[in-house]
Amino acid sequence: MTESPSEATRRLERQLEFIRELDRLKSVLRRTSLIDRSRLENTAEHSWHLATMAIVLAEHAPEGADVARVVEMLLVHDIVEIDAGDTFAFDVSANVGKLAREQAAASRLFGLLPTDLAERLRALWDEFEANESPDARFANALDRMQGLVQNDAGGDGGSWRQHGVTAAQVLVRMSPIQRAAPGLWPVVLDAVARAVAAGHVRDDRPIG
Amino acid sequence: MTESPSEATRRLERQLEFIRELDRLKSVLRRTSLIDRSRLENTAEHSWHLATMAIVLAEHAPEGADVARVVEMLLVHDIVEIDAGDTFAFDVSANVGKLAREQAAASRLFGLLPTDLAERLRALWDEFEANESPDARFANALDRMQGLVQNDAGGDGGSWRQHGVTAAQVLVRMSPIQRAAPGLWPVVLDAVARAVAAGHVRDDRPIG
Repeated sequence: MTESPSEATRRLERQLEFIRELDRLKSVLRRTSLIDRSRLENTAEHSWHLATMAIVLAEHAPEGADVARVVEMLLVHDIVEIDAGDTFAFDVSANVGKLAREQAAASRLFGLLPTDLAERLRALWDEFEANESPDARFANALDRMQGLVQNDAGGDGGSWRQHGVTAAQVLVRMSPIQRAAPGLWPVVLDAVARAVAAGHVRDDRPIG
Repeated sequence: MTESPSEATRRLERQLEFIRELDRLKSVLRRTSLIDRSRLENTAEHSWHLATMAIVLAEHAPEGADVARVVEMLLVHDIVEIDAGDTFAFDVSANVGKLAREQAAASRLFGLLPTDLAERLRALWDEFEANESPDARFANALDRMQGLVQNDAGGDGGSWRQHGVTAAQVLVRMSPIQRAAPGLWPVVLDAVARAVAAGHVRDDRPIG
């Protein structure tokens, strides 16, 4: 290290400032409930669940994906919600302005860090948002799937039923899973079929 | 893949069963509160915070540590609390029987997974608990530090004051940080000094 003690101290203070700020993600609520339906899930615990899913389902990652990098990406993919809040995927009007809100949030939040770290984590987030690289496509697929698992496992249609989402809307929303991790697609089809059979989502699936 | 379709289906069903079970970690409460003191923190969001801290503070990992592996270790290090509950570090009587409770929990929970994954995640947890490898020592150091940051940042002494913990007890509890990540030790000393100055912990630090 060629840093002077005061440079090192300033660097560490910026890292700690970011770490303290992260605590606020625990207070950002999503539309999805815990499986026991005791309360809404927050974005911090959602991010943990997702990152751990990436490890458990690593064999389904697309060719060229680096699962350790996917895990990092998932840990930071929703940090912008500290400023921008969670936007319900099926709420069209709430999604207006989402991009600008999240870009501003990314600039402020990652900007708390020393430059090298800020650039590295911001690049991971940009890559997740672009959803083009193998790592980003797997991360996005898991992000879709986690909500599906929680809606399905509760046995009551969860946020789909609460917000009147249809079967075709769910399938469109889940389509990144089919592309990035086709081995997981049967999980989606089964969950949607169960939700239709139980009357939790309206069956507007195209025939054939 | 040489698996038959039904083998692949059974494997995926076991992975999903584990993923659904993970949801319960969001309902395990710790003694530490969020920095805004709005509520107690749960173990799932704690695990996310820690894993993200490992990325942000990677440069403080001891020689020979693999930070991507530390992140994996931190994601699974507290899964046993789904069955065994959180045990407050400073509560001596609650720590009686902790080892046996957590071993049984590890067997059941990791045992939900297909054998190869069960063995891999169980080995990560065993390594964390043994606290000997560079990866485990860094993971344990961060685990100690996260509670310290939250107690310090709230400005009220947090769980230390609530439970009458002394300065010397905090320093003993934090000592793995000094060993694994000496560059972070000043953060501990500063936080304890602030807690002493504010009268939040009794000053029984040895002189000199």
